[in-house]
Amino acid sequence: MSEAHVQVTLKKSILDPQGSAVEKALRQMGYPVDAVRVGKFMEIRIADGLSRTEQREALEEICRKVLSNPVIEEYTFSLEDQP
Amino acid sequence: MSEAHVQVTLKKSILDPQGSAVEKALRQMGYPVDAVRVGKFMEIRIADGLSRTEQREALEEICRKVLSNPVIEEYTFSLEDQP
Repeated sequence: MSEAHVQVTLKKSILDPQGSAVEKALRQMGYPVDAVRVGKFMEIRIADGLSRTEQREALEEICRKVLSNPVIEEYTFSLEDQP
Repeated sequence: MSEAHVQVTLKKSILDPQGSAVEKALRQMGYPVDAVRVGKFMEIRIADGLSRTEQREALEEICRKVLSNPVIEEYTFSLEDQP
Protein backbone atom coordinates (compact mmCIF):
# COMPACT_ATOMS: atom_id res chain seq x y z
CA MET A 1 0.00 0.00 0.00
CA SER A 2 1.33 3.41 -0.89
CA GLU A 3 0.62 6.71 0.74
CA ALA A 4 1.32 10.13 -0.71
CA HIS A 5 1.90 13.27 1.31
CA VAL A 6 0.88 16.30 -0.70
CA GLN A 7 1.67 19.90 0.22
CA VAL A 8 -0.04 22.73 -1.59
CA THR A 9 1.22 26.25 -0.94
CA LEU A 10 0.65 29.66 -2.44
CA LYS A 11 3.38 30.71 -4.87
CA LYS A 12 6.02 32.93 -3.27
CA SER A 13 4.84 35.89 -5.35
CA ILE A 14 1.26 35.62 -4.06
CA LEU A 15 0.28 37.45 -0.87
CA ASP A 16 -0.77 35.14 1.97
CA PRO A 17 -3.03 37.09 4.35
CA GLN A 18 -3.78 34.01 6.44
CA GLY A 19 -0.06 33.42 6.97
CA SER A 20 0.48 37.09 7.83
CA ALA A 21 -2.29 36.92 10.43
CA VAL A 22 -0.74 33.82 12.05
CA GLU A 23 2.69 35.49 11.97
CA LYS A 24 1.39 38.65 13.65
CA ALA A 25 -0.42 36.65 16.32
CA LEU A 26 2.65 34.53 17.08
CA ARG A 27 4.86 37.61 17.35
CA GLN A 28 2.43 39.34 19.68
CA MET A 29 2.60 36.24 21.86
CA GLY A 30 6.38 36.62 21.94
CA TYR A 31 7.39 33.75 19.70
CA PRO A 32 10.57 34.19 17.61
CA VAL A 33 9.09 33.92 14.12
CA ASP A 34 10.05 35.92 11.04
CA ALA A 35 7.47 34.74 8.52
CA VAL A 36 4.61 32.26 8.24
CA ARG A 37 2.94 30.87 5.15
CA VAL A 38 -0.11 28.65 5.37
CA GLY A 39 -1.01 25.89 2.94
CA LYS A 40 -2.86 22.63 2.64
CA PHE A 41 -1.67 19.17 3.48
CA MET A 42 -3.21 15.94 2.22
CA GLU A 43 -2.51 12.28 2.90
CA ILE A 44 -3.67 10.18 -0.04
CA ARG A 45 -3.72 6.37 0.01
CA ILE A 46 -3.24 5.09 -3.51
CA ALA A 47 -5.05 1.94 -4.67
CA ASP A 48 -2.97 -1.22 -4.97
CA GLY A 49 -1.97 -2.74 -8.29
CA LEU A 50 -0.22 0.23 -9.86
CA SER A 51 3.46 0.54 -10.61
CA ARG A 52 5.40 3.33 -8.92
CA THR A 53 5.46 5.21 -12.23
CA GLU A 54 1.69 4.93 -12.66
CA GLN A 55 1.20 6.07 -9.08
CA ARG A 56 3.38 9.12 -9.71
CA GLU A 57 1.53 9.96 -12.92
CA ALA A 58 -1.89 9.69 -11.23
CA LEU A 59 -0.69 11.86 -8.36
CA GLU A 60 0.79 14.51 -10.66
CA GLU A 61 -2.55 14.74 -12.44
CA ILE A 62 -4.56 14.82 -9.20
CA CYS A 63 -2.36 17.60 -7.82
CA ARG A 64 -2.37 19.64 -11.00
CA LYS A 65 -6.03 19.30 -11.93
CA VAL A 66 -7.85 18.90 -8.63
CA LEU A 67 -5.91 19.76 -5.51
CA SER A 68 -4.17 22.95 -6.58
CA ASN A 69 -4.88 26.04 -8.59
CA PRO A 70 -1.78 26.29 -10.78
CA VAL A 71 -2.30 30.00 -11.33
CA ILE A 72 -1.57 30.88 -7.71
CA GLU A 73 -0.44 27.65 -6.05
CA GLU A 74 2.35 25.12 -6.30
CA TYR A 75 2.55 21.61 -4.90
CA THR A 76 5.05 19.00 -3.83
CA PHE A 77 4.41 15.40 -2.93
CA SER A 78 6.29 12.41 -1.62
CA LEU A 79 5.26 8.81 -2.10
CA GLU A 80 5.99 6.09 0.45
CA ASP A 81 5.20 2.44 0.92
CA GLN A 82 3.15 1.77 4.01
CA PRO A 83 3.20 -1.50 5.96
CA MET B 1 18.10 31.14 8.84
CA SER B 2 15.92 28.20 9.77
CA GLU B 3 12.62 27.19 8.32
CA ALA B 4 10.16 24.76 9.85
CA HIS B 5 7.60 22.75 7.94
CA VAL B 6 4.63 21.98 10.14
CA GLN B 7 1.89 19.49 9.32
CA VAL B 8 -1.28 19.44 11.37
CA THR B 9 -3.72 16.58 10.77
CA LEU B 10 -6.82 15.26 12.46
CA LYS B 11 -6.14 12.28 14.72
CA LYS B 12 -6.81 8.96 13.02
CA SER B 13 -9.80 8.36 15.31
CA ILE B 14 -11.49 11.62 14.27
CA LEU B 15 -13.79 11.65 11.24
CA ASP B 16 -12.56 13.85 8.39
CA PRO B 17 -15.56 14.88 6.27
CA GLN B 18 -13.44 17.19 4.11
CA GLY B 19 -11.09 14.33 3.28
CA SER B 20 -14.03 12.02 2.54
CA ALA B 21 -15.48 14.58 0.15
CA VAL B 22 -12.17 14.91 -1.70
CA GLU B 23 -11.83 11.12 -1.82
CA LYS B 24 -15.33 10.68 -3.25
CA ALA B 25 -14.74 13.37 -5.86
CA LEU B 26 -11.41 11.86 -6.94
CA ARG B 27 -12.96 8.40 -7.25
CA GLN B 28 -15.85 9.69 -9.31
CA MET B 29 -13.27 11.22 -11.60
CA GLY B 30 -11.67 7.80 -11.97
CA TYR B 31 -8.52 8.30 -9.93
CA PRO B 32 -7.12 5.26 -8.07
CA VAL B 33 -7.38 6.53 -4.48
CA ASP B 34 -8.39 4.54 -1.40
CA ALA B 35 -8.50 7.25 1.24
CA VAL B 36 -7.81 10.97 1.62
CA ARG B 37 -7.25 12.99 4.75
CA VAL B 38 -6.90 16.76 4.68
CA GLY B 39 -4.83 18.84 7.05
CA LYS B 40 -2.95 22.09 7.36
CA PHE B 41 0.58 22.87 6.28
CA MET B 42 2.66 25.78 7.52
CA GLU B 43 6.10 27.11 6.65
CA ILE B 44 7.53 29.05 9.57
CA ARG B 45 10.75 31.05 9.37
CA ILE B 46 12.35 31.15 12.79
CA ALA B 47 14.22 34.27 13.94
CA ASP B 48 18.01 34.09 13.95
CA GLY B 49 20.07 33.88 17.13
CA LEU B 50 18.54 30.79 18.68
CA SER B 51 20.19 27.44 19.18
CA ARG B 52 18.67 24.43 17.46
CA THR B 53 17.33 23.25 20.83
CA GLU B 54 15.69 26.62 21.53
CA GLN B 55 14.18 26.60 18.05
CA ARG B 56 12.72 23.14 18.63
CA GLU B 57 11.31 24.17 22.00
CA ALA B 58 9.66 27.28 20.57
CA LEU B 59 8.21 25.28 17.71
CA GLU B 60 6.86 22.55 20.00
CA GLU B 61 5.09 25.22 22.03
CA ILE B 62 3.76 27.03 18.95
CA CYS B 63 2.41 23.78 17.53
CA ARG B 64 0.87 22.62 20.79
CA LYS B 65 -0.62 25.89 21.96
CA VAL B 66 -1.45 27.80 18.79
CA LEU B 67 -1.44 25.82 15.57
CA SER B 68 -3.20 22.65 16.64
CA ASN B 69 -6.07 21.60 18.84
CA PRO B 70 -4.54 18.73 20.81
CA VAL B 71 -7.96 17.26 21.54
CA ILE B 72 -8.60 16.33 17.92
CA GLU B 73 -5.38 17.08 16.03
CA GLU B 74 -1.76 15.97 15.98
CA TYR B 75 1.25 17.66 14.43
CA THR B 76 4.67 16.90 13.07
CA PHE B 77 7.38 19.33 12.06
CA SER B 78 10.80 19.30 10.50
CA LEU B 79 13.40 22.00 10.89
CA GLU B 80 15.91 22.89 8.20
CA ASP B 81 18.62 25.45 7.65
CA GLN B 82 17.92 27.69 4.68
CA PRO B 83 20.62 29.41 2.64
